[in-house]
Order: sequence, then C-alpha cells, then structure tokens
Amino acid sequence: MECADYGITRALERDNLNLNPLQRGGVLPAAARKALYEFGDGYSVCDYCAGRLDQVTRPAVNSFLDDLADFIDADAVRTVHGAREGKFAVMHALCEAGDTIVADGNAHYTTHLAAERNNLEIVEVPSTGYPDYEIKPEAYREVLEDVADRVDVKLAVLTHVDGNYGNLTDAEEVARICRKMGVPLLLNCAYSMGRLPVKLREIGADFVVGSGHKSMAASGPIGVLGMRSEWEDTLLRRSGRHEKKEIEMLGCTSRGAPLATLMASLPHVVERVSRWDDEIKKTRKLVSELEEMGGIRQIGKRPKEHDLVRFETPVFHDIASSHPRKGFFLYEELKKRRIVGIRRGQTKWFKCSVYGMTDGQVQYVIDSFREIIEKNRN
Amino acid sequence: MECADYGITRALERDNLNLNPLQRGGVLPAAARKALYEFGDGYSVCDYCAGRLDQVTRPAVNSFLDDLADFIDADAVRTVHGAREGKFAVMHALCEAGDTIVADGNAHYTTHLAAERNNLEIVEVPSTGYPDYEIKPEAYREVLEDVADRVDVKLAVLTHVDGNYGNLTDAEEVARICRKMGVPLLLNCAYSMGRLPVKLREIGADFVVGSGHKSMAASGPIGVLGMRSEWEDTLLRRSGRHEKKEIEMLGCTSRGAPLATLMASLPHVVERVSRWDDEIKKTRKLVSELEEMGGIRQIGKRPKEHDLVRFETPVFHDIASSHPRKGFFLYEELKKRRIVGIRRGQTKWFKCSVYGMTDGQVQYVIDSFREIIEKNRN
Ligand SMILES: Cc1ncc(COP(=O)(O)O)c(C=O)c1O
Ligand SMILES: Cc1ncc(COP(=O)(O)O)c(C=O)c1O
Repeated sequence: MECADYGITRALERDNLNLNPLQRGGVLPAAARKALYEFGDGYSVCDYCAGRLDQVTRPAVNSFLDDLADFIDADAVRTVHGAREGKFAVMHALCEAGDTIVADGNAHYTTHLAAERNNLEIVEVPSTGYPDYEIKPEAYREVLEDVADRVDVKLAVLTHVDGNYGNLTDAEEVARICRKMGVPLLLNCAYSMGRLPVKLREIGADFVVGSGHKSMAASGPIGVLGMRSEWEDTLLRRSGRHEKKEIEMLGCTSRGAPLATLMASLPHVVERVSRWDDEIKKTRKLVSELEEMGGIRQIGKRPKEHDLVRFETPVFHDIASSHPRKGFFLYEELKKRRIVGIRRGQTKWFKCSVYGMTDGQVQYVIDSFREIIEKNRN
Repeated sequence: MECADYGITRALERDNLNLNPLQRGGVLPAAARKALYEFGDGYSVCDYCAGRLDQVTRPAVNSFLDDLADFIDADAVRTVHGAREGKFAVMHALCEAGDTIVADGNAHYTTHLAAERNNLEIVEVPSTGYPDYEIKPEAYREVLEDVADRVDVKLAVLTHVDGNYGNLTDAEEVARICRKMGVPLLLNCAYSMGRLPVKLREIGADFVVGSGHKSMAASGPIGVLGMRSEWEDTLLRRSGRHEKKEIEMLGCTSRGAPLATLMASLPHVVERVSRWDDEIKKTRKLVSELEEMGGIRQIGKRPKEHDLVRFETPVFHDIASSHPRKGFFLYEELKKRRIVGIRRGQTKWFKCSVYGMTDGQVQYVIDSFREIIEKNRN
C-alpha cells in the first residue's frame, strides 16, 4: 500500500512570529529539545519502571513530581495527558452519572466535554457579559447557593484564566465560597500554570489542572493534576487486582517524550513565572498602543492581567469591506511581515498574545499593525 | 526554587542491544525523528485546526487516518493516547456501571484497569495454563455462553498477542463466536498492530486498539482505535453543545509530537509488517539455539508466532546459586556485552525480543548467552 504525503514539516514557528495564544506557552526551550532527542523512542521513560510511572527514578520522575508539587503548592501531583484529561479524571472520581456540578460561564469547551462524557449536569455561573465578561465571585456564590438548595453539588469548576478573554478570576474568593459550602473546587489552570504563579493551597482549591503543551513549554500531549492530600484516596485509588496501579490513571499516563520535555522545561518554567510582571507590561503596552491607533478595542477585564488579549477591530473590518482581497487582507499583510496566528479571513475581532516575545518583537508587531492600518485605511 | 537534576539522558537504546520486548517496536525510524524535530513544540499539530483533529489537513492528519484505516481494514479510525485509553473509551461508550464483559485470561493489566475504571465486572476465559498458556476459541465460547445465560454480555475483549507469553490468538474464530452470540468484540492489538498484519474486517472484530509507542515506531503516548462503521455513532458521538466535538475523544486526543511521529512512521510500519515472516524466523532461531544450550525452555505456544518470547532458564538460576554476584551475574554479564533489557537480578525466567535486530545482532545475542553459560556453568 502507498501512503500519501502528509506534509510533516512545520516551518510556521521557525520562520514567523506567531500571535496564536494557544502556541505561545508551548515553545520548547533548548533543554526540552534535547529531552525530545533523548526520549524520542516509544516507551522511553519506562526503562527502569517498577510498576509506577510516578516512582520512576531514571529519569527522575519521582523528584520531578516532588519539585512540581512544590512549585504549585499541592500535596500530590500526577501527570495526565492534558488539562481536559485531568478534569475528566477529577469528575470521574468524584461524581456519578446524573450528578450536578457548577462551572463558570467562561469555561473551556473541554470542561463541558469532560462533564458530558461523565454524564453530569452543568449549572453555569454567568459572566457579566459584554464587554468585560467577568466572572464575579458574588455571582459564583449566588448560583452555588441556589443550586445547593435543590441538589447536592458534587464539584465546582472555575477557569483560572479563560481562553476567550484572558480574564484572570478571583480564585481565592471563589475557593473561600466553595469551602464554606463544602463543595470541592477544581481550578482549571490550563492558561495560568507555567505562565503565572499558581499555588493550590494558598488559593484554597482542592484540585488544579495544568496543560504542559499550552503553558508549560512541553510537547503535547501532557498535563498536570495537583490535589490536596485529602483527595488522594479518592483520585489515586488503587486497583484491587493490580495493587500498584492507580485506576484513574489507567496504571500510567504519559509514557514517553512529552513527559521528558515537561521535566526538562521545569527550571525554565519556574524562572519565567518569576518574570510574569514583565509579560503583563508587554501585554499592556500592546493593548494601549493598538487602542491608540483607533478602531481597536480590548475586550475582557481591564487592565489586562494575562497575555491573552481579545480585540474588537472595526478598523480592519472597515478596510476589508472595500479591500480587493476582502477579509483576507489582514492575514496576508501580516504574513508578508512574517507575523502569523490570526485566522485567515477574520477581521472583526481576534485573539492574540505576545507571550515570550522580546521587547523588540513586540514593537515590531505593534509597528506592523500600525503600518497595515496606515497603508489601508480609507 | 531549585529543581533537582532529573537525569534526562537515555543512552540505553543508543549504546546497547535492548532485549526488552516493550521497547523493540517503538524505536523511531529517521522520518519520525525528523517529525519530532518539526513538531516538538506544544500544540504543534493544531496550527490549521478548524475544530477537529481528525480533519486537520496541515499536516495531513485526515489523509493519514484514511491510510491507517486502509492499513488495518477498519471503517473509521481515531488516534487515542494508547491502547489502554482506546479500551477505556470503547468500554465507556458501550457499557454502564455494573455491566459484565468477558476477557481472556492473558489480558494485559490495562484491560483490567479500563474495566475497573468503568465499574465493570470481568468474567475471564482461562488459558490452558502451564506451559502453553493458550487461549482456545472453544474455551472462549464456553465462558461466553455460560455468562450469557446469566447476564447480558456487553463486550468481549480478546488480547491478540499477550505481553506475557507472546501467544497469538485465533481472533477470527473468537470473532465468529462473538458475532454468532451478538456480542461485540474488541481486539487488543497493542503487541500486533504495526508488527504483523491486522485486518479488522477480515478478522471480523468490531473494534481494534493499537499502541503507537509499543508497536508502531512512534513516540509515546499514542494509540490507535479502529472500528466498524456501525459503531461510529456510539463511539464517536458528538457533543450536544459543541457540535463538532466527539465526546469520548474529549474533543481531541493526541495534540502534538507523538501524532507527528506516528504519521511519519506509517510508511516504515507498512513496509516492516510485510516482512513479518522474517521476524518470526529470527525469533524461532533464537528459541532453537537457546534451547539447544540446555536448561532453557520456551514457555507459551510452540512454534513461536510472535517476537516476544518467554524463557524458563533453570541454567541461569543454577549458576546464580553459587555465583559470587548471585542473581545479578546474568544482568552484569549481558551488560558487559552491551546487551540490556533483562531485569537486574532475574535468573529463573525472562521475557525478551530480538524484533527489528539484524541477523548479525541476533547471532551476537545468541553467542553471548552461550558464552555466559559456558563461562559460568558449574
Ligand atoms: C481554559 C482552557 N482550558 C483547557 C484547555 C485545554 O487544554 P488541554 O489541551 O491541555 O486539554 C484549553 C485549551 O485551549 C483552555 O484554553
Ligand atoms: C497486550 C498489551 N496491551 C496493552 C498494553 C498497553 O499499551 P498502551 O501503553 O498503549 O496503553 C500493553 C503494554 O505492555 C500490552 O502488552
């Protein structure tokens, strides 16, 4: 049989500045590139396994998990395949089909899918809507109290930073509310862990999930699941028949290269999280300079507390209406300048991030947008 | 915070001949090494995603899945995180808590864990026991009929080739029995798909799962789930709220490097499967030459139809009893000769595989065992 040509090259990230928020936090540092080379083959992390991935000492998965637990201030940590698989595991361990959970209105689709796969009912805490889309702890409390009057709420899920507006929620306050009501809280840190400080116990959450490929400079798919000690028995329950094996992990999870990259990247991630304030400065500069151009407006909470920015861009939509390339002009103008990551044909609004870029690169992005506007504005 | 040194190097596979069956089928060919380099960063396969991983065209995940479906003669194929995650998904989609499934007595622990995580009852088809440990279709039929008298059997699982004895089961015959009784059959091909020909429709199975890191020359974790068209609605059911997203896949599964390696390796895998007979010849040569040395006996079905071989080795156990290094001598003698993959301290029996080795390497392994015996035999 003949295989097609699958086009397995990816020059996008090498040759361009990528504004796609999804890709900014997953770029590998040199150490992780080396780990990929070393641990590329099959079950590469399993050479010295005695039955438990989290206890492997060569490479030192065990000390890595200790460091990671420290880093996120959790009592126990496991790697999972991603944030969504972590959410699924928590829901699966805590809930039964038909149970009700509460989630914020900015939750990622994977929160909904994890719940749907577990046959759970989601009651939603609405955001404040346009233009801030804020999730207020007060609203969370109201919904939680209201639902708790009717049914037993098995779990509360809060998106620490959402993927639509890049809003950072007040997790401490929501955790206080949940604790008071006796509802365990799962904090979805896919967009925060590895970018900004996340401290499970300080926040007061019961569980956190993180995403290695999204925000921890790791090869996908890999994620992090952290928990308080009181949940270990539930979440890390062992098999009756295979004593060493944890059921929710199906024995073991990330048995290969992505884990090696997550491990190799941890020192880099620890360091970059300590420079989070610089990232915020860069982001705010981007926002203020773009807004100054006119016809561009940042949506979501102000001022920005995260690198993911959503802009409404009537200026580009106006240009598109009379441009010979129509809606494609923006993508093409950016592409000419080696800037990518904004969807082809989209001009009304876009999401972007300059996370991890140098000041010079951020300036170049700003200047490029200015040039495109000046050149094309009617 | 200071991170420990995790020792993220892996010279084992570079510097030695590795007899560990778990690692023989996961070694990357050059094309997959290149894919790893290209697709190392984060969500690398998601640049051009319009909401469905299996429909991504750059890289051409869509045509890859078409070719893969062809290769394993399935109507629909998805990538999953591994064989176990594929088994979990099938059980989760077909069964409810408390349901009963039937599985063979040589099933991998991950079959048990997938069932346990789904709260399923497993009824086991016993093997013939020592020394062949064969799973006979007749025994499968008896158990199935017996259980079906009492409860509704929701699924039958058969290990195509098991990981303890490397026995190839008569999947066609078991499939015939299952079909006759109206019980869907899931064939666990973790040790077969990518090594020997696996044809879902020819066999008559409803589902097959494969393991990329174990047998398909891919970086872990990645697996393959193939099915007949009549199961697509059940297994690939879409979310009510997010129309494009498949619930059992949590939207998407392998979002990164392992998928790129699986794709890059497919032509290599297709080619090597066509040379399976040569692998069997090598394995049988290993068995006959080792058995000729005396005090070594192949366990499991004879003659070998798979590269995984389990040997009983009283000769090494005898030596260990009076050797100054006790049970460690075998490991150490092999290590000196740059042969690894047999557990340290183990001399009563071991599992090994020479899959993918050249004839010269196989001869070297054989000669090494002979030398070790001659040098140490009392
Ligand atoms: C807020 C949020 N949660 C979860 C996810 C999914 O992360 P993963 O791919 O690790 O499951 C995303 C990805 O876009 C996200 O933005
Ligand atoms: C027969 C069998 N099934 C399943 C597995 C697990 O495969 P995966 O790691 O892809 O889940 C193994 C691994 O050893 C195996 O031998």
